[in-house]
Amino acid sequence: MSQSAKSVSELAALVGGRVAGKAETQIQRVASLDTAAKGDISYVEDEKFFEAATNSRASCLIVPENSSLSLRCQIAVKNPKLAFALIAEVLHPPKQREPEIHQSAVIAETADIALEVFIGAFVCVGENSTVGSGTQIRAGAKLGDNVTVGADCVIHPNVFLEDGVTIGDRVILHAGVVIGADGFGYVRSDMGYHKFPQIGTVVIEDDVELGANTTVDRGALGLTRIGRGTKLDNMVHVGHNCDIGERVVIAAQTGISGSVTIEDDCVIGGQVGFGDHIRVQSGAVIGSKAGVLPGKIVRPGVWWGIPIQPLDEYKRLNAHLSRVPAMRDELKELKDRVKELEQQLLKRDR
Amino acid sequence: MSQSAKSVSELAALVGGRVAGKAETQIQRVASLDTAAKGDISYVEDEKFFEAATNSRASCLIVPENSSLSLRCQIAVKNPKLAFALIAEVLHPPKQREPEIHQSAVIAETADIALEVFIGAFVCVGENSTVGSGTQIRAGAKLGDNVTVGADCVIHPNVFLEDGVTIGDRVILHAGVVIGADGFGYVRSDMGYHKFPQIGTVVIEDDVELGANTTVDRGALGLTRIGRGTKLDNMVHVGHNCDIGERVVIAAQTGISGSVTIEDDCVIGGQVGFGDHIRVQSGAVIGSKAGVLPGKIVRPGVWWGIPIQPLDEYKRLNAHLSRVPAMRDELKELKDRVKELEQQLLKRDR
Amino acid sequence: MSQSAKSVSELAALVGGRVAGKAETQIQRVASLDTAAKGDISYVEDEKFFEAATNSRASCLIVPENSSLSLRCQIAVKNPKLAFALIAEVLHPPKQREPEIHQSAVIAETADIALEVFIGAFVCVGENSTVGSGTQIRAGAKLGDNVTVGADCVIHPNVFLEDGVTIGDRVILHAGVVIGADGFGYVRSDMGYHKFPQIGTVVIEDDVELGANTTVDRGALGLTRIGRGTKLDNMVHVGHNCDIGERVVIAAQTGISGSVTIEDDCVIGGQVGFGDHIRVQSGAVIGSKAGVLPGKIVRPGVWWGIPIQPLDEYKRLNAHLSRVPAMRDELKELKDRVKELEQQLLKRDR
Repeated sequence: MSQSAKSVSELAALVGGRVAGKAETQIQRVASLDTAAKGDISYVEDEKFFEAATNSRASCLIVPENSSLSLRCQIAVKNPKLAFALIAEVLHPPKQREPEIHQSAVIAETADIALEVFIGAFVCVGENSTVGSGTQIRAGAKLGDNVTVGADCVIHPNVFLEDGVTIGDRVILHAGVVIGADGFGYVRSDMGYHKFPQIGTVVIEDDVELGANTTVDRGALGLTRIGRGTKLDNMVHVGHNCDIGERVVIAAQTGISGSVTIEDDCVIGGQVGFGDHIRVQSGAVIGSKAGVLPGKIVRPGVWWGIPIQPLDEYKRLNAHLSRVPAMRDELKELKDRVKELEQQLLKRDR
Repeated sequence: MSQSAKSVSELAALVGGRVAGKAETQIQRVASLDTAAKGDISYVEDEKFFEAATNSRASCLIVPENSSLSLRCQIAVKNPKLAFALIAEVLHPPKQREPEIHQSAVIAETADIALEVFIGAFVCVGENSTVGSGTQIRAGAKLGDNVTVGADCVIHPNVFLEDGVTIGDRVILHAGVVIGADGFGYVRSDMGYHKFPQIGTVVIEDDVELGANTTVDRGALGLTRIGRGTKLDNMVHVGHNCDIGERVVIAAQTGISGSVTIEDDCVIGGQVGFGDHIRVQSGAVIGSKAGVLPGKIVRPGVWWGIPIQPLDEYKRLNAHLSRVPAMRDELKELKDRVKELEQQLLKRDR
Repeated sequence: MSQSAKSVSELAALVGGRVAGKAETQIQRVASLDTAAKGDISYVEDEKFFEAATNSRASCLIVPENSSLSLRCQIAVKNPKLAFALIAEVLHPPKQREPEIHQSAVIAETADIALEVFIGAFVCVGENSTVGSGTQIRAGAKLGDNVTVGADCVIHPNVFLEDGVTIGDRVILHAGVVIGADGFGYVRSDMGYHKFPQIGTVVIEDDVELGANTTVDRGALGLTRIGRGTKLDNMVHVGHNCDIGERVVIAAQTGISGSVTIEDDCVIGGQVGFGDHIRVQSGAVIGSKAGVLPGKIVRPGVWWGIPIQPLDEYKRLNAHLSRVPAMRDELKELKDRVKELEQQLLKRDR
C-alpha cells in the first residue's frame, strides 16, 4: 500500500489533537502497539494497554485526552481509534489507478464513461450504463444495461451489476458481489413453481461498502435499497424489496428475507436470520446468530437468541434453565418429604 | 425489462378468468396495489387488502372468484397470485438476447453450440461441451470440458460449470454459481489429510433455478443431483452426492452436507443445516435456522429447531420452558410449606 | 477424469498391503461397493458392509487387516479408506493442463511466471507477482500486484487474489474464492462510519484447500494466516487477522470474526459462528451450528450449542430440559398433596 510521510504536527492538526514531544518527527506508517517500529504511529485507548504503550517502539502514539500517559511523543485526542483511522487514510490512501480503459474491456457504444475512470481487463459495461468520475471498475467486473455507477467508487474484480441497478458515490463493492439478481419468489400451482415477477431494481446509496461475495437481490415489483453509509460484511444475503437504512452495520453471513426494513443506525451481528416483512426500528442491536420471525417489529434495544428476546430476558431465562437439573433434584426430595408426611398422618389415623 | 401491451380480455383468456368492466382496456405492466397507475394490472387475495384494492389506481385488478369485490375493471380467478405471475410472464418476458457468439469468447473446436445461442464476452466453453438452442451464456461464465447445457437456459455472468456437469433445459443459474467443484472429503493419516476421491459429477434437471453464489459440489464417486423444477435461493451449499428431488424449495444460506436425500416437494427454510446421510421424506417442511443431525430420517410434517422437532412439540416445550422461572418460585414456596408441615407434626409429637 | 490402469500388485505395493487372489488383475478405476464393476477397485471398513463387499462386482477390494473376509481378490491394509484414497490419487490423478499462457491473459511485464505453468483465458496477473512451477491458473482468475503463488497449485476459475497475498505450494483454491479483500472494521463518529485501516495481508500455507466462494480477508494491520494442510469447505468466511493453524478442518458456511486463533488439528463443523478474539486450543472439536462468544478460550474436547458447552453437559442439560413438562405436572400434583395435608392438619386442630 502506498505511503507518504507526514510530521507529527501535521497529523495532529488533521485530527485536532494536542502534541507532546517532537512535533517534527516524520511518520510513515500506522501500526499496532506491539509491532510498531521507528517511523510508525500507533494508538492506545484502554488503560490496560497503557503499559504496552509505554513499551511500544512507535515513533508517536495517539492517546486519550486527559490520560495519565506522558510519552516521548504523543498526540492527545478525544477518540484515539477514530484519529488513528483518519491518520491511516492519509498515510495509506486507497490505491489509485490511473484513468485507463483496458483494451480488452467491452464497453457498449451507448455507455457513458466519465473521463477519469479506470476500467480493467475483461470488464463489460452494457447499453446506456454510466460510470462516474474517479471510479475504478476492476478486472472482470460486469455491468449490465442501464446501470448507473457514481463517482469515486471501487468495483472490485468479478462483481456483477445486473441491468438497471443504481450505485451512488464512493461505494466499495468487494470481489464477487452480485447486485440485482432475481429475488426468490414463486407461486405454486399443480404444475410446480411459477416465478413471481422479479422486475424491480436495486439502489445502493453513497458511501456503502459491501463485503466479498455478498448478494443483493432486485425488488420483485419495487425497489431493494441500501442506505447511505451502510456497511455489509462478506456473504450477506439481502432479499428482494428490503429497505436497509443509513449507517447500518451488518456482519458476515447474515441473511435477510424479502421485504424486511432495517431502519437507520441499527447494528446486526453475523449469521443472523430474518424472516420476511420484519421491521427493525432505528438503533436496534441484534446479536450474532439470532433469528427473527416473519412480520416482527423489533424495537430499539439489544436483542438475542432464536427467536429473539431482549438480551437481559434471554440471559435471565437461560440462568433459570441452567437450574433445571437442580430443580429436578429438589422436586424429587420434596416428593419424598411429602410422602413421609402423608404416611405419618396415616399412621396417626390408625 | 421489455413490455408489450395486452387487453384485459386477452389476459383473462390467458388465465381462464372472468372479466367485469372494460375488457378492451390495454395493460402494459404489472405492479403492486399501492404503486399501480394507469396501464397497470395488480392483484388482491386477502380480504384485509380489499379496501386498498378499491383505492388502487391500477387499470385492472385480479381478484378471487366469488369475492365481494366489484371494481371498475377486474378479472376473477381461483388463484389471483398465480394468475398475476402468469400475466407478468407475458407482459415482462425474460430478456431475450439475439443469437451471437461474442468475438472474445473462447470456444473449444470440439464444442457443439446450437445455432440459436447467445454467448457473451469472456465466456469459455471447453472440449466436447454442448450448449442447447435458445440458451444464453452471459459474460464471463465458464464451462469446463464435457459439460452439457440444455435448451433455453440462462447462465448468468461469472457462473462456473466444472468438467462433466450436466444441466437440463430451461435452467437458470444466477451470477457466481459454482457447479461441480470438489466435495469436502478427506482421510486423516499421521501425515495430515488426504483427499478422498472427488471424481463423480453433477446433474441439474430441467426448470431448476439456483440463486447467486450458490454452490453444488460434484459427487465423490457417484452423482449429485438436483431434480426437475427445484428452486434454490442465494448462497445455498449442496454437498457431494446429495440427491435433491423435484419441486423442492430451499431458501438462502442453507447448507447441506454430503449424501443427503431431500425427496420431492419439500420446503426448506433459510440457514438450515443438514448433517450427512439424512433423508427428508417427500412433503416435509423444515423451518429456517433448523439443524438436522446426521443420519436422521425426517418424516412429512413441519419441523423446527436445533435439533429439529415437530413444530407443535417445539412450541409446547418452549412454552413449558418459559414457565421455568415461575416454577422455581412455586417450588420454593412449596418447600416452605412442607417445612412448615413437618414442624407442625414435630411439635405435636413433643 | 483421466485414468491409467495398474495391477493389483502395483496398487498393493503403493499402500503396503497384502494381496490375496490374482495380483496381476488390471484395475482402471475406483468405485463404491455397490456401483463397482469389472476393472474397479473398492474398499470396505465396517463389518456391516462385509456382505455387500462379498456381493460387490469390483475386481478387487481393499479390506481391513485381520478381517474375516476372504474375497476372490483383495488387498488387506490397516486403513482401507486411506489406502483407497491413495490408490484413487494414482488411478485418477488431478487433471494436468499442459503449460501454456493463453493469448487472452493479461500478464504484467514485471510478473515472474515459472516455465511450467498453465494460465487460462481471461486471467490477470499483476505487477511483481510470481507463479511457481506446475501451477494452474484457470480461466478468469485474477491475481493483483505483488501476489506470490507457489508451485503445483490449482487456482480455479474466477478466483481473486488481492495485492500482496502469499499462497504456498500445492494449494487448491476452488472457484469464486476471494483472498485478501478488506476486513470488516470501522470506527463510528458523529459523521457515520470510518474505515479502520485494512492494510495487512494474507498468507495461505502449503497444502491448503479452500472450497468454492470461500473468503479470507486481509489483516487490518498484521496478517491473516491459514496453516499448512488445513482444509476449508465452501462459503467459509475468515475475518481479518485470524490465525488458523495446521491440519484444521472447517466445514461449509462457518463464519470466523476478526482476530480468532484456531490452533493445529482442530475440527470445526458447518455453520459455526465465532465472535472475535477467540482462541480454540489444539485438538478441540466444535459441532455444527455452534456459536462461540467473543474472547472465549475453547479447550480441547468436544463442544456444542449456542453458546458452546462441552457436548456431554449439553446433552445432559437438554435431557433435563425435555423433562420440564413432566416436572410441571409433578409440581402441580405435589401442590395438591401439600394442600391436602395442610387441610387435614387444620381439621384436626379444630
